[in-house]
Amino acid sequence: MQLEDSSNSLQATLRQRRQRLACIIKTPVILWSGRAPDRNFPANRYPFRASSHFLYFAGFPLDNAAIRLENGKLELFLDDASPESALWHGEMPKRNEIAAKMGADAAYPLAELASRTANAATVAVQDIKTYQQQCQLLARTVAPANAPEGIDRELAKAIVSLRLSHDTEALAEIRQAAAVSVEAHLAGIKATARAKTEAEVRGAMEEVIIAHNMQCAYSSIVTVHGEVLHNERYYHPLQSGDLLLADVGAETPMGWAADITRTFPVSGKFSSTQRDIYDLVLAAHDTCIEKMRPGVEYRDIHLLAASVIAEGLVELGILRGNPTDLVEMDAHALFFPHGIGHLLGLDVHDMEDLGDLAGYEAGRTRSDRFGLGYLRLDRPLRAGMVVTIEPGFYQVPAILNSPEFRAKYQDVVNWQRLERFRDVRGIRIEDDVLVTESGTEVLTARLPNAAEEIEALF
Amino acid sequence: MQLEDSSNSLQATLRQRRQRLACIIKTPVILWSGRAPDRNFPANRYPFRASSHFLYFAGFPLDNAAIRLENGKLELFLDDASPESALWHGEMPKRNEIAAKMGADAAYPLAELASRTANAATVAVQDIKTYQQQCQLLARTVAPANAPEGIDRELAKAIVSLRLSHDTEALAEIRQAAAVSVEAHLAGIKATARAKTEAEVRGAMEEVIIAHNMQCAYSSIVTVHGEVLHNERYYHPLQSGDLLLADVGAETPMGWAADITRTFPVSGKFSSTQRDIYDLVLAAHDTCIEKMRPGVEYRDIHLLAASVIAEGLVELGILRGNPTDLVEMDAHALFFPHGIGHLLGLDVHDMEDLGDLAGYEAGRTRSDRFGLGYLRLDRPLRAGMVVTIEPGFYQVPAILNSPEFRAKYQDVVNWQRLERFRDVRGIRIEDDVLVTESGTEVLTARLPNAAEEIEALF
Repeated sequence: MQLEDSSNSLQATLRQRRQRLACIIKTPVILWSGRAPDRNFPANRYPFRASSHFLYFAGFPLDNAAIRLENGKLELFLDDASPESALWHGEMPKRNEIAAKMGADAAYPLAELASRTANAATVAVQDIKTYQQQCQLLARTVAPANAPEGIDRELAKAIVSLRLSHDTEALAEIRQAAAVSVEAHLAGIKATARAKTEAEVRGAMEEVIIAHNMQCAYSSIVTVHGEVLHNERYYHPLQSGDLLLADVGAETPMGWAADITRTFPVSGKFSSTQRDIYDLVLAAHDTCIEKMRPGVEYRDIHLLAASVIAEGLVELGILRGNPTDLVEMDAHALFFPHGIGHLLGLDVHDMEDLGDLAGYEAGRTRSDRFGLGYLRLDRPLRAGMVVTIEPGFYQVPAILNSPEFRAKYQDVVNWQRLERFRDVRGIRIEDDVLVTESGTEVLTARLPNAAEEIEALF
Repeated sequence: MQLEDSSNSLQATLRQRRQRLACIIKTPVILWSGRAPDRNFPANRYPFRASSHFLYFAGFPLDNAAIRLENGKLELFLDDASPESALWHGEMPKRNEIAAKMGADAAYPLAELASRTANAATVAVQDIKTYQQQCQLLARTVAPANAPEGIDRELAKAIVSLRLSHDTEALAEIRQAAAVSVEAHLAGIKATARAKTEAEVRGAMEEVIIAHNMQCAYSSIVTVHGEVLHNERYYHPLQSGDLLLADVGAETPMGWAADITRTFPVSGKFSSTQRDIYDLVLAAHDTCIEKMRPGVEYRDIHLLAASVIAEGLVELGILRGNPTDLVEMDAHALFFPHGIGHLLGLDVHDMEDLGDLAGYEAGRTRSDRFGLGYLRLDRPLRAGMVVTIEPGFYQVPAILNSPEFRAKYQDVVNWQRLERFRDVRGIRIEDDVLVTESGTEVLTARLPNAAEEIEALF
């Protein structure tokens, strides 16, 4: 932890977040940071990642800490490092120094927390050892974060209402993550010219993130098989006719994420079929962003992307029929089976630990429509939200070879025409978009996305 | 998972390992692979790392799988991926294909395991969800891996006896990890000339590991504060008089590790004080490796390093007295407070999940001597063992400023003379050494370690 990074403005922001929480929820709140899980043996842990809810109010990624919030006041519970720890891990800032940096009202050893847990609400953390502590100290079974109960549910809703719109400090962090992610993608495109495998391009991209003292916000996708949506294999060789899909984002030391996807030709030049589809995906991307402003339903943005894609696929002769009807029958989803995007913040899918509580407006639930069920966000946009816009086109064998889909969409797909596009396995273009009072600001705009611009980078 | 990587020789090796186990232990054995822990939300997991004991006998890093071994036979328990999974993660090899690759005698869905657990021994995995399954399916409390009980202890001892000496397939993997780690260090040294921070050098090193489709075997240490032994902070600027200590190692996709440390001057040129200490640490390193052969006690190798260091520090005027007496009173440990190294294999500290069961010969326990207590390995060397040799010199404030140590060692340290070496905060030189029938082979020898050679790389 690098306390030097902290500023008065961070402290004021943290205080403001706590006060806003206190206006919504009157019960005491205890949030745990968690601990790093063991990898193959206890001394070899995964990199520590503090719980996002803890980070939102505490600011710093403190290992094995808790904060208690009540009426806007913060109490920090954290043990000072043992003397032996100084040998192995160096001198660490003391509890009281850290407390001062975060503007805590009091600070105690962790053991003191046991006497301060009455009637407290919490959010279950992902780290299981800490989760067991939560249950033990609160003397009750804490329901999992994605199905909170009672006061925990009230707390989760309160936190969602705060975290949905980002304050200046949060936006500054997301901009930093975005700037480094842009650099990573530029490095990736540049590396592709000399790289022989997906792994080499991934290395060039993650180098940039590591060099900026950040982590990856999620497992990178760097693949010539973009049709595998969450592909985490990197061993394929790069071949001249391939498109390389790179979905890579940085996370700042304080935990804030960016999330960018670019798809580019290994040879530096799109084929005409690749270019046709690329331009269509980009048109969907641009059309969505143009329409975004406070009050607009994100679901409508998703459906807009679906329409643009359906219309374009009709023009290219891949789909047959009226675009509106095609979207209604989810024909677009044969090629664009996921949602147009998601919330972005401390988590790359922000607050997804809470299930759909953050993503879905109260009273709304996931659709069972093939073309809508994977939509992660169904709310009216509001100023201060950051969302991704990430339309795509994929030829997923599990979909296109499925007998049910083949039967259902036999007549609306020109399967023969589609054959000619077989060098387009997967394309996605993803940017991070801030909703402003008057419209939008694309936080990742410095990274080109037009086909000619991408080609010019080679 | 890349099944193409597998070979007939791997299959034969896996069978041989199972048969060797069957010669030692007659009860059935069930080993679980574990699962990736959740990071900040369930869909955003840490990279999966299969349990090393599972990997040793199963060969492949299968997520959420178990193997049952009895009389040299292997039964694989693994669920085929769901059809929905093909959309997100692509087509995965089927259970039967995987079973064939590992030479399994039978393969079943995971649910079948419940009926095959009677009297089985196991090793507790690090992943807690899987650990809970272990207890539930075996219908007993499985003690933690570092304190196994009953048949689990017998199993742990049997596994240790196998894994202490590496077979050809294991050595091939370790050599691969070593080769990539050497490349990473060369890239790190090269990057130092233009880097402004520790993080940038780390980025250049880890890029090489990622580009080879490997992972880091442990959290990298890349620091100008080498006196912090497990420093995991990377934000310091590089300044011309600094030494940069880099302890970075790769792990192959099958899980085998390398572990290398080099210390080099940021400017490309050691100062005379840095050079004096560097040469001394290297002398300790070389002397240790020269003396290693089957039958030699690793503890004696540690004490040999201590002697060389004590002697050298007397020559440099930092310690006063007879080197033998100085080692006996642990004066060397003021500057070399850790052990000379550890076992290396599937874990960077091999089998350290089992506590000292692997590291310490039966009947031996950790010393409470300051100069020996951190020794991780106390066994006679045998052919096929791979160990690290990693002497160091550090000026740890927590040690050198400690009133107790100051009092105890007041007269044997020339504190004034030591002042002149203040530009040597931490130096470590670490290589991976295979014990052969006739002596040793340094698996990481391709990476230079002589001061002139390091300087020549700049």
